[in-house]
Amino acid sequence: MKRNILTVDVRKIEGPESGPAHDFVAVEEPLEIRIGGKAVSITMRTPGNDAELAVGFLFGEGILRSKAGIERIDAVGPNAIDIEVNVDVDTERLERNFYTTSSCGVCGKASIEAVHATGCAMLPRNGFAVDSRIIHGLPVSLRESQAVFDRTGGLHAAALFDREGKLLSVREDVGRHNAVDKVIGAEVLEGRPPLHDRMLLVSGRVSFELVQKAVMGGIPLLAAVGAPSSLAVELARRFEMTLLGFVRDDRFNMYSAHWRVL
Amino acid sequence: MKRNILTVDVRKIEGPESGPAHDFVAVEEPLEIRIGGKAVSITMRTPGNDAELAVGFLFGEGILRSKAGIERIDAVGPNAIDIEVNVDVDTERLERNFYTTSSCGVCGKASIEAVHATGCAMLPRNGFAVDSRIIHGLPVSLRESQAVFDRTGGLHAAALFDREGKLLSVREDVGRHNAVDKVIGAEVLEGRPPLHDRMLLVSGRVSFELVQKAVMGGIPLLAAVGAPSSLAVELARRFEMTLLGFVRDDRFNMYSAHWRVL
Repeated sequence: MKRNILTVDVRKIEGPESGPAHDFVAVEEPLEIRIGGKAVSITMRTPGNDAELAVGFLFGEGILRSKAGIERIDAVGPNAIDIEVNVDVDTERLERNFYTTSSCGVCGKASIEAVHATGCAMLPRNGFAVDSRIIHGLPVSLRESQAVFDRTGGLHAAALFDREGKLLSVREDVGRHNAVDKVIGAEVLEGRPPLHDRMLLVSGRVSFELVQKAVMGGIPLLAAVGAPSSLAVELARRFEMTLLGFVRDDRFNMYSAHWRVL
Repeated sequence: MKRNILTVDVRKIEGPESGPAHDFVAVEEPLEIRIGGKAVSITMRTPGNDAELAVGFLFGEGILRSKAGIERIDAVGPNAIDIEVNVDVDTERLERNFYTTSSCGVCGKASIEAVHATGCAMLPRNGFAVDSRIIHGLPVSLRESQAVFDRTGGLHAAALFDREGKLLSVREDVGRHNAVDKVIGAEVLEGRPPLHDRMLLVSGRVSFELVQKAVMGGIPLLAAVGAPSSLAVELARRFEMTLLGFVRDDRFNMYSAHWRVL
């Protein structure tokens, strides 16, 4: 059983006072992701749900398209996952520059078009809509379900909800991208994407990379407790995903595709 | 002039109220780092101090050892930095697995030993010590100096202090590793590391990667406003770096090398 929390001895200082104490820290360990025995990536992650993490990562990069492409998943020791696939995969893709195009080199626009070139579709315009009162409730549901966060202060969380705001799954990790990969990877293993009737909440800020993963999963609404970056907003607008930031304390900002919030 | 903040149109929701508003978001754009014309890495970063970022990154990876190894630095368009070096550099190092050893594969212990193999030295045992009252003041100094953070909520900061708690430099970025690379890169460009009489403060959590960068810079004390990960604590203990977490509101935890705090 892999541990995701460790107890460490510390000295605790409060004002002029000082004394020995224990602290809980989130475990961080490298995970090697392999395809057919060949290492394609290493990520620093919190152990647990490693198969989901590997599958979600490969899905988010456009290397693995669905559960049907997976032949077998093997844990190789405590820190490697090997995925046997039955489709042609372009592993060199991971070694090439995802953010570069031959026309304009490396820039934000090229990064966005690279996501498009991966085969990402626009999020559907109709079908998914949610009441703002349900949005206000999402961070409350997440906090209530977080097993580890309150003890270590060191884990990011990602949670999947249905349109009524029912929490369907939550994953935690020292890396925010890993938490999202685990959530989406679990859905891929159930054969479910595109997740056109789901919302994703992340506990921190939103970068380009997180929007990319949600777009790849077909998720029409991404909500974050923290701030989005400029490129996260641009990418969400490009694919007509509804991006919400600062979702806390009964308020939030809508950066794109407002029509999905009633 | 590259912008590091953008204004975006949003809809702001507060409880049942909703209306149009403006929001400031931190700019995120890719930067390609080249050595002698060859692309070796791409990072998503906030524009500004790009040469420092590139130099700090290469220094942290053990590829560039000092300012003396730099022949010339060229900005290639807005999103690429090319560094001409006059020493042999092992660019394939970046393509190999930093976290792997042939003896035990990929694991936390191997990751720590890989840092050791890069030529990192133990932090010196004597010389640097600091009063706990000075530590309590660090986050206050950082907040006062942060130009952007309060407006976007989306930037991480890293700040370098002397042992009296005087703030010497501060850098902000959407990526916490980039903020640290910029701070240390600026010091490399001044020919200063090892930074044996400096403290580094980071605004968020501390991962293995951030401790690694500080160890490479020879910084004996790393303080964080947020939580450390397990591997951050292990790496700090291995090199006898003083690691402090939760440095805020007149309290903090000491995870290693307590003797440097008086």
